[in-house]
Parts: sequence; structure tokens; C-alpha cells
Amino acid sequence: MLTSSRLDEASGASLFFKCENFQKVGAFKARGATNAVFALDEETAQRGVATHSSGNHGAAVARAGKLRGIPAHIVMPSNSAKVKIRAVESYGAQVVFCEPTEESREIKCAEVISQTGATLIHSFENEHVVAGQGTAAIELLEDITDLDVIMCPVGGGGLLSGTAIAAKSMRPQIKVVAVEPENADDAAQSFHAGRRLVTEKKFTIADGLRTNIGEPNFAIVQSYVDDIVTVSEEAIISAMRTIWETMKIIIEPSAAVPYAAIADGVINVNGKRTGIIITGGNVDLDTLPWSGNRDR
Amino acid sequence: MLTSSRLDEASGASLFFKCENFQKVGAFKARGATNAVFALDEETAQRGVATHSSGNHGAAVARAGKLRGIPAHIVMPSNSAKVKIRAVESYGAQVVFCEPTEESREIKCAEVISQTGATLIHSFENEHVVAGQGTAAIELLEDITDLDVIMCPVGGGGLLSGTAIAAKSMRPQIKVVAVEPENADDAAQSFHAGRRLVTEKKFTIADGLRTNIGEPNFAIVQSYVDDIVTVSEEAIISAMRTIWETMKIIIEPSAAVPYAAIADGVINVNGKRTGIIITGGNVDLDTLPWSGNRDR
Repeated sequence: MLTSSRLDEASGASLFFKCENFQKVGAFKARGATNAVFALDEETAQRGVATHSSGNHGAAVARAGKLRGIPAHIVMPSNSAKVKIRAVESYGAQVVFCEPTEESREIKCAEVISQTGATLIHSFENEHVVAGQGTAAIELLEDITDLDVIMCPVGGGGLLSGTAIAAKSMRPQIKVVAVEPENADDAAQSFHAGRRLVTEKKFTIADGLRTNIGEPNFAIVQSYVDDIVTVSEEAIISAMRTIWETMKIIIEPSAAVPYAAIADGVINVNGKRTGIIITGGNVDLDTLPWSGNRDR
Repeated sequence: MLTSSRLDEASGASLFFKCENFQKVGAFKARGATNAVFALDEETAQRGVATHSSGNHGAAVARAGKLRGIPAHIVMPSNSAKVKIRAVESYGAQVVFCEPTEESREIKCAEVISQTGATLIHSFENEHVVAGQGTAAIELLEDITDLDVIMCPVGGGGLLSGTAIAAKSMRPQIKVVAVEPENADDAAQSFHAGRRLVTEKKFTIADGLRTNIGEPNFAIVQSYVDDIVTVSEEAIISAMRTIWETMKIIIEPSAAVPYAAIADGVINVNGKRTGIIITGGNVDLDTLPWSGNRDR
């Protein structure tokens, strides 16, 4: 957990950053995947685990499979970044390529499961994954017991639902606020409409948050989350750069989304003790969002 | 202090990184400057402090002056990066511009001192600065009491002389190893020649280490340092990128120099509990050393 006197000054709040960019596989996803893989009974586990993911969850399931000593099958789009493929392979998992469409991913994953008897470890529609992701909030609240607000980004809602259950259980008066890119705002729209909407997405640099919120996750969010707000692409990039420059830590665009809401004035945390979950730090250093823009 | 299981595996050692990139002003220089400014008697202090620096020491003296509530005059080359000038000004210090030559810096600084009565806070030829820089090693050895080796880079030798005195006092059997860029290897040459040599410098990306080692610093180094080794520019850039990608922290090129010696096989720390002082994290994010090289 890190703090920054400069960002406290800029926000008027006391900010506590839970740095999941320092987590194994470079993201909070290690928590949920490990918990879900180790929750399987021995016989089921021996048949292996499978998931489809081009991102941090794939590496997390690969690592969890290695830790438990069971086969892991990771379905990845054929156009995935080489560094991500290598990360999954480094844990000894089997990479299965598919076409870069949501449909192809799911079909290929179902095939692998029917052939191998492996268990699907879904990246957010899985209660053990949700419970695992919630441990980041537990640790943060163990360190800083008197938080007024806890913030995290929302994509599929695995982290948000786990965070909300953990935080409200430990500290009922805490406000749980999620932040979402404007360009992928299905969770915010759903939250304010009171029912789950599947919306069309525009491009967002916060690639971890492009997913629609899951049904079981949304039900938890409706019960335990206080607000979901949205931020622009410009605010995300600016917040990411501010955190790199000020805190000297490498965070991925998705991880900058909560602080973007504070820096851009979308949410006012003045005077509040505010926890922020920095979700991950996996970034391609050759293609930073501000490269090409050298007149800043 | 951070560790990395991946870098431990790669090196065969147990590495303990003392992260001075998280220090105030983004570098260990905050330690020495604060100690030196607060060591002045009240009457002397009221006349202010001055230094010449285009880098982290200037910001550190500016901040220390603000903390003590006394004037600080920082002589900077007129071609300094705007972000560095703004950093100094943000502490309320007076920036005095000079020509971008060593001679002009010293003349302008002497002028400021004769006009104001300010005290020079030299960036390494000052015993209070040396003592302050040594506190990083003290903290590291308080955390990890059984280090076999402690490593840091060497430029003017303020950090190295402070580290060596602190480490050998707390743990006489520890090996103190300094690392220097091949392109600015006066300290290594001097150490092995047994007398202080002022050598010609080529360009090095480790801009904090271009300075010749100071006379009082070299005397301490001769008594307390076990070895000084050198690394290539390629090794420095590669080590910097490895630490960014693996540890998710932003470090400046000078800070990557010790790990470069390990990664490049210049020094063997296999099986050794090895402390590394990560000296700072002030980097221009628009001009990273690997930008332009996108085929990696």
C-alpha cells in the first residue's frame, strides 16, 4: 500500500493505493484465479482447468494451475501480444489459439473442456473468483481500518463485487464507488437503470474494462455498491501519466480509471480517507498512450 | 524495500531493492540535502543556502530550504528541462540561470554566495551530505540484517561513501560494491590505480553519474569499498527496462546501473543476500531510452 503527499494535496483527500501492480502476474487477477483453482476438489482438479482470456486472467489461471500441479488450458486470440503468450507459456500452461472474436473464444474453450474434462475458471462469473478478488480490499482495510470510501474500476465486475462484499462486511458505513470508462459504460448505465443492460462499446484504452458486467456480479453490485461513475479517455491517460510521474509506479490504463474520476472532478473525495485499488501494471513499454504526443 | 522472485530466479541471489525512487523529490538526494541544511547553525542558516545542480540535488536543496524556512538559491544551466526548473520552483527556491558549462555553474554559484552570504551545499563534497545519503543503507540493513553484499552506483561518490561507512559500521563482513558506467569510469580507474584520476568522459545515459568522484569521497571509498566495476550503456538500458517490466517501478537510468552489473554477469552474486540501492525515479516519460526501437 502506497501513499503520495502530492496526490493528497491535489485531491484534498487522504489516498491509500493498494498496489496490485506488484501482485503476482502483475495484477489482482492472481487472487481470484488461485482461490478458484484451489477450491476444486482433488478429482475435479486433476482433470485440469481452462479459461479464455487475452489478458491478466489467462496468466493468473496458468500460474494457479502450475501451483496446484494440474493442467491449465488457456484459449487466446491468435493475434494476442507475444509477451502475453509467453507469460502464459512460462507457467507451463497449454495455449490454445482461436479467432479474435468473443464467439470463437467461447466455442474453442467449450471444445477444450469437452475434450479434456477441464473445469472452466470464468474470469468473473465464479464465486470463488469473486471471493479471491475481494481479498485486496480485506488487506487494505486491515491496513487502513477507517476508510470512508473505497474505489475500483469495473469491467466484468469480479473485482467490484468482491470488493463491495468485503468492504461492506468489514465496515458497513464505507462508500463503495466504481469507475468505468465512458466508452464502455454498461455497468454505470445498468446501475442507474436498475437492470442489467448490454450496451454497445466504443474503443477504450482501458482494455481490461471492455467486458460487460456479469449477471451474478451485477446482482451483488446492486446490493452493495453506492455509485458507479464514468471517465473520459483523456482523463484516463492523464491520470495514468500523473501516477507514473508522481508515484514512480507502472500501472496499466485500467488501473488509472479510479484516480481519473478524482483528478477530473467526477467524484469529490475532499477530506475523505479514500482507498483505491490499483488493479495492475502490465503495459507494453513500446506503445505508451502518450507516445507521439511530445509537446506536453 | 521491494523484492522480486523473478529477478531472484534470474540472478540466483536474494535481491533486496531499497527504493529511493519513492523518496521525496524522487531520489536519495533528499536525505543528504536535508541533513546538511538542518546541520547549519541558526545564524548561518538564516543567510540561506545555495548549490549548482541541474538534477535531483537541486530539487533536494530547494525542498530542504523550504522545510527549514530559509532562502535557497539553485544555479541551473539555462538549457535545463522545464520540468526540473518547475520542480525547484515548486519548493519556493530562487532559480539562478547560468551557461551550460561546469565553469559557468561554479562562477555563478560563487557570485550568488558572495552577494547573499548563503552557504554552499555541495552535492557530494560535504560530510553532512555523505552522512545523510548513508541513511538509506542504514534503513536497508535495519530491515535485512544479514546482507552479504550491498551495491550502489557511483558518480561524485556521496552515496557510495555514505553507504560504505554505514554498511561497514553496522556489518563489518559485508561487501560494498559500486558500479559505474564504462563511459564515465573515473571512480573505477581511480580505485584500481590507488589514486584519484580525473578522466575524460563519453556520453552516458546514466546522467546522474557523469561527475568525477570527489576527493574526500575517494578517500572514504579507498578505506571502505571492496570493489568498483563498470557496465556498458546497453546493459544499463536493458536492466532499466527489465526492472520497469518486472517490478513495475519507474527508475532512472543511473538507478539501473547496479542491477546491470548482475544481469550482465560483471559481478557474481549467486547465493548472496544482496542489497541494491535504487537511487531515483525521475525520468522524462516522453524520451525513454528504448523509444524508436519498437522491434524488440
